[in-house]
Amino acid sequence: MNDLSNWITEKAESIRPVSEEWRARASQRLDTLTKPLGSLGRLEAVAAQFVAIRGERWHEPIRKGVYIFAADHGVTAEGVSAYPSEVTRQMVLNFAAGGAAVNVLARLHGAELAVIDVGVVGDLDGGEGLHHHKVARGTKNFLREVAMSDDEVLAALRVGASMASYGLAAGQNLVGIGEMGIGNTTSASAITCALTGASAADVTGKGTGVQAAIHAHKISVVEGAVRMHFGLGDASPTDVLRKVGGLEIAAVAGMILGCAEAGIAVIVDGFIATSAAALAAAMVPACRGYMIAGHRSEEPGHRVLLEHLALVPLLSLEMRLGEGTGAVLAMPIVESAVALYREMATFASAGVSEASA
Amino acid sequence: MNDLSNWITEKAESIRPVSEEWRARASQRLDTLTKPLGSLGRLEAVAAQFVAIRGERWHEPIRKGVYIFAADHGVTAEGVSAYPSEVTRQMVLNFAAGGAAVNVLARLHGAELAVIDVGVVGDLDGGEGLHHHKVARGTKNFLREVAMSDDEVLAALRVGASMASYGLAAGQNLVGIGEMGIGNTTSASAITCALTGASAADVTGKGTGVQAAIHAHKISVVEGAVRMHFGLGDASPTDVLRKVGGLEIAAVAGMILGCAEAGIAVIVDGFIATSAAALAAAMVPACRGYMIAGHRSEEPGHRVLLEHLALVPLLSLEMRLGEGTGAVLAMPIVESAVALYREMATFASAGVSEASA
Repeated sequence: MNDLSNWITEKAESIRPVSEEWRARASQRLDTLTKPLGSLGRLEAVAAQFVAIRGERWHEPIRKGVYIFAADHGVTAEGVSAYPSEVTRQMVLNFAAGGAAVNVLARLHGAELAVIDVGVVGDLDGGEGLHHHKVARGTKNFLREVAMSDDEVLAALRVGASMASYGLAAGQNLVGIGEMGIGNTTSASAITCALTGASAADVTGKGTGVQAAIHAHKISVVEGAVRMHFGLGDASPTDVLRKVGGLEIAAVAGMILGCAEAGIAVIVDGFIATSAAALAAAMVPACRGYMIAGHRSEEPGHRVLLEHLALVPLLSLEMRLGEGTGAVLAMPIVESAVALYREMATFASAGVSEASA
Repeated sequence: MNDLSNWITEKAESIRPVSEEWRARASQRLDTLTKPLGSLGRLEAVAAQFVAIRGERWHEPIRKGVYIFAADHGVTAEGVSAYPSEVTRQMVLNFAAGGAAVNVLARLHGAELAVIDVGVVGDLDGGEGLHHHKVARGTKNFLREVAMSDDEVLAALRVGASMASYGLAAGQNLVGIGEMGIGNTTSASAITCALTGASAADVTGKGTGVQAAIHAHKISVVEGAVRMHFGLGDASPTDVLRKVGGLEIAAVAGMILGCAEAGIAVIVDGFIATSAAALAAAMVPACRGYMIAGHRSEEPGHRVLLEHLALVPLLSLEMRLGEGTGAVLAMPIVESAVALYREMATFASAGVSEASA
């Protein structure tokens, strides 16, 4: 066993499935509240999931964090994005300056924002308030060679897990995870093919806005990479990460595993973060119970991954931005579900008549 | 012309359509923000609508109110609900005591809650913090006779409009409107048939939880009422209100008209409030531009009305509660859209490269 598989084995041993006993207790209590049975719809399932995740700590105040992992992708050399690779660094500086979409949403909804450089090509040493954990200056071009070494995969997973510890130390119990990386929808598409067996054409979308000709080219790049790396049967999740993954994608997977270990509820945002969630679930299936899907992306691969994970996003607003925006937008919904669970009157306490049978 | 049609004519004269000029300006500005074109999806349309509604006041801080109009329905005598009529009054007292779902959500999301008795059968004089505007002690049973007189319809519309003035005086620019009234899905179903020509079977759902036998009976009640009242061609919206409406439904319609007059954005919640919105739009079409649909209800009639009004709800969480809960849940989405519009950096200000053409 190498260090990488040792690390995953350790996580598998320390992650406990969410508590079905607490979920059942929560469902019972929901039926005593002053509302027709089941009338809060999906909010009831979300509240019960939160209670199942938190167990006896279900009543603690909600404290929120949002994490954006940023890295570059060698596959951009193939011309798969409408934006130059340099935009990854520019957007990280925009996050640091507070001007990006996710900054606005995190401020509005009271989530602490952490931006983590796990593999941006350019220098970010000047960026205020950034978390500097650069594992490498981008991945290799996965159409030509493997994207990362085992050591890089492990280092990036560990960066993610360390951010879960950071969130735990800050008292957070609800986090959103997003990403920034020009070219990373191409990586997520290849991951989706490798994990689900779907075809490149079915999972490869237009990313943040490529045109038809580039889109066709992007599909052929994903197709070629999948054929080259995964010719012979099933690949392990670490193999998928190493061959066609991204440093930020590995870090998101690591953070999800760390959150599951720490009993923190995780809102997964968009196509790329969901590809990381699928990898995390393939490594340690019990972490699936800690995941809440935030927003349904317009990327076709996202649907495939959501079905694969049996997750249904809370929101569907036709966004295709990433950055954790969909996760932060879903936070008020999750908070609403938990607040209703905690604060509503019961039929008995309010003196309201129940329905006839 | 009687007083009722005079009142509507006055409203039609004072409601201005939302500003297409401001909407166009907003769309232009959205394209300069640091995000791929259109990548905020429906949030961009919501932000542009808010700017179109508010015009030069678009930058004022958002102040939120949520209004619940409560009334009873004579048609409950036909056994169309799982709950006794008395529950309307009990739930109003639950709102007053702060224990209902909408109380929890309004507190969480910082919306001022107003509960208005516009026609509850029972006495509510003791209810603290309620707005007392009882027009009548419930409607008549519309399967046997017309539900309200012209004077009652006008009085209830005026109650609603007066609450828009109340919101305006409180500085509110974003309000949610909901309702409480045992039996009112039956009324909303009949209204939907009358306005859209849909059949009773297509628009009549299970309300807050009736069983199959009651559901079939409810459909036949709606069918019978529609046949009796609307045998001969098109009915005017005031005619529909008078014959099969509810006092709270008239008040919601009046408040929507008042909000349009005052330039306040209105989030419409659920099936019953949307039936009122459809009536308001039939009275004064220009008020449609001020409406945002909050949550897609599970009631089949809601879909019919949303198509009729060409509204697409922001949320779809399988809720079926009313009380304005869907409107309050949609508020953080609307606020997010507006905050993104106001606060995001532009490509120029942040020094981020734009996409290649």
